[in-house]
Amino acid sequence: MSTDDDATALRLDRDHVFHSWSAQAHLSPLVIAGGLGSTVWDHAGRRYLDFSSQLVNTNIGHQHPKVVAAIQEQAATLTTVAPATANLTRGLAAERVLSHAPDGFTSVFFTNGGADANENAIRMARLHTGRDKVVSAYRSYHGNTGAAVVATGDWRRVPNEYARAHVHHFGPYLYRSEFWATTPEQESERALHHLERVIQAEGPTSVAAILLETIPGTAGVLVPPPGYLAGVRAIADRYGILLILDEVMAGFGRTGRWFAFDSFDVVPDLITFAKGVNSGYVPAGGVILSEPIAKTFDDRVFPGGLTYSGHPLAMASIVAALDAMADEGIVENAATVGRDVLGPGLAELAATNPLVGEVRGLGVFWAVELVRDQATREPVDAALMGRVKAGALARGLLPFLADNRVHVVPPCVVTPEEAETGLGLLTEVLAEVA
Amino acid sequence: MSTDDDATALRLDRDHVFHSWSAQAHLSPLVIAGGLGSTVWDHAGRRYLDFSSQLVNTNIGHQHPKVVAAIQEQAATLTTVAPATANLTRGLAAERVLSHAPDGFTSVFFTNGGADANENAIRMARLHTGRDKVVSAYRSYHGNTGAAVVATGDWRRVPNEYARAHVHHFGPYLYRSEFWATTPEQESERALHHLERVIQAEGPTSVAAILLETIPGTAGVLVPPPGYLAGVRAIADRYGILLILDEVMAGFGRTGRWFAFDSFDVVPDLITFAKGVNSGYVPAGGVILSEPIAKTFDDRVFPGGLTYSGHPLAMASIVAALDAMADEGIVENAATVGRDVLGPGLAELAATNPLVGEVRGLGVFWAVELVRDQATREPVDAALMGRVKAGALARGLLPFLADNRVHVVPPCVVTPEEAETGLGLLTEVLAEVA
Repeated sequence: MSTDDDATALRLDRDHVFHSWSAQAHLSPLVIAGGLGSTVWDHAGRRYLDFSSQLVNTNIGHQHPKVVAAIQEQAATLTTVAPATANLTRGLAAERVLSHAPDGFTSVFFTNGGADANENAIRMARLHTGRDKVVSAYRSYHGNTGAAVVATGDWRRVPNEYARAHVHHFGPYLYRSEFWATTPEQESERALHHLERVIQAEGPTSVAAILLETIPGTAGVLVPPPGYLAGVRAIADRYGILLILDEVMAGFGRTGRWFAFDSFDVVPDLITFAKGVNSGYVPAGGVILSEPIAKTFDDRVFPGGLTYSGHPLAMASIVAALDAMADEGIVENAATVGRDVLGPGLAELAATNPLVGEVRGLGVFWAVELVRDQATREPVDAALMGRVKAGALARGLLPFLADNRVHVVPPCVVTPEEAETGLGLLTEVLAEVA
Repeated sequence: MSTDDDATALRLDRDHVFHSWSAQAHLSPLVIAGGLGSTVWDHAGRRYLDFSSQLVNTNIGHQHPKVVAAIQEQAATLTTVAPATANLTRGLAAERVLSHAPDGFTSVFFTNGGADANENAIRMARLHTGRDKVVSAYRSYHGNTGAAVVATGDWRRVPNEYARAHVHHFGPYLYRSEFWATTPEQESERALHHLERVIQAEGPTSVAAILLETIPGTAGVLVPPPGYLAGVRAIADRYGILLILDEVMAGFGRTGRWFAFDSFDVVPDLITFAKGVNSGYVPAGGVILSEPIAKTFDDRVFPGGLTYSGHPLAMASIVAALDAMADEGIVENAATVGRDVLGPGLAELAATNPLVGEVRGLGVFWAVELVRDQATREPVDAALMGRVKAGALARGLLPFLADNRVHVVPPCVVTPEEAETGLGLLTEVLAEVA
């Protein structure tokens, strides 16, 4: 551990590593060498309080000893096995995942992450309904994949080719309402009306699924207003459309509940997950199927799959992570820290700093929206966000920034004291740049 | 370790695990509990010689001690980190991967597997060329993803929306020629003519990339005839089209060379990989970029990415696997076993068993094509393949079956003695069912 290693890491990165969602010549990435709980550090020992959970995935914190031990133990036994086999660790992981799902969910299809979880949920919905279109929100992110199966030439391409495909709608977002609404109730009602009109205009019998992040995450932690998700469920039912809830970012403790939809009056037909299920310690994701959809593929071939579906190393990390979260009350901790520290602290910040247009969230899943003007709600620019980032890092706080927002998304294991500390640092930074 | 665990594994699997590419009610999966080298076993201790490498991925064999140790060590340090950071293990993995690529390849974009490797290579090719169509072979498999980024609503969708997309062509396959060819030279020439005519008919300036498995794998280990890949390279150059070689199954030792294209007179613009790079011990894949394509994204945002890009645990397994393969001559072993044992042995099988229509391959990458009639070349049916599978498993041989073929694809570490043993068992099985 030395500054030499930091320099080597940075040199190798800049010479040879191609980065996600970036112009490659304009990066100066932070070196991270290790971590524990809510803290990460570089090789020289500079420490950062992690208010990002990396990409909102380390719900159980960094390097949870029980999950690390489970990975090491499984590594010694069997790292990888073909998905067509049966494997005890995989079966236990499926059982654990299902234990947190509502009644009526009976099986799990494991993937490598969130994108291919959504891929396979969409595939299931299309084949179950015999329809093709998927309705999802403009303010959403569901993964980066979109071509490999149609580039494929063999039979596996054919059941996955759709000429008509994706339709987008506006979801509820009262602070920047698309519906001229002034109250949460009005925003909810009008957003439902809009969604139903889009579906009617597209032809309801052409729509296989409504795909929603339960709480749109990267789009701004857009907590749905009262009645919205129940209304979406009613629309889906009215037209024989399946409801897929994407719980990749919001699921497994982030909101202070096992699933984000547990806070709302709704049960989906398919649930997609990744990130928090094992805190990303090993790449993994999946789809939880309700029984009617699972049964569709009892006698009919499901035309989807992947080499690392139900990968034993990933499965061991799921079993250990979910057990540790249950045994140690980690989901409850997220709820408590949200209710007692982050909620009140961010409300205080909003009341006192003119940059803050709105704060919203629950559990350890919050957004602080920064604006140039409280009246016009014009977002702050990228230069100001750059100053926020630099000011936070200089104070030892690792933030998560998206557009004009700071997302306050520490691990679910964050202590009240760490949450207070991080809020204090963020308050300082925002006072400085205001 | 007991038969009870086998029963539990099977029960949990059948109750809760949804399987790839299958009708779920018709599965009786083999339980696998552990493995070492070219052998796997169940909980009761029944052992199988692995002639499948699972899904043709465990090139280094099962549970290589150096790779297991590297995973355990990295697990103790840092399992996961955001892709936007710099991480030493990730830089070392990129350096190792590039050390086996031809001159002119400068950076690596890491993914979770082969599908998203191809996704991102296609994305790079489209943006680099400003064109949209991708030409690939009917006899190919490039992954199971195809919708998540267009289901996404935010800006990341827009640069990834293409109305025109995928065109398919026939590649060379002399045994079942689409071109009325009778010699390898004629098959190569005619397949090239066909490919060029497809591109001309599609409009060459609309074609971003030709995407090919260097040796189509699941489609039947279709080793390209002399001159074919060099001819494809020339066609690509003639029309300003990029050549993407998919080395997901064929790369990292499978053919007895680091890359399958090392055996042919061709260098691609982009290389995609997964499986053999770390034998799938941790889910990982990636794209190796040649410098001109990497430079396209110096000042322009690359609109692709994923949470687990360059995942430290996966990266540690890549470094250890590639080092062990180099130090222990594992790639050379694959070449030797192919040349001295599998090649001659399978030729003997073809000469003596009337079911065998053709054998083809190199290294530890072979297909045995079974036919009802040597003259008509009519494929054997699924019932016969079921008897092949049952016969092999009963003898302790784990086979890889695809359509009417047995793919002989043991780990690259398979010893000459194990290869002889497996061939002997396969010969017995095929004699029994003939």
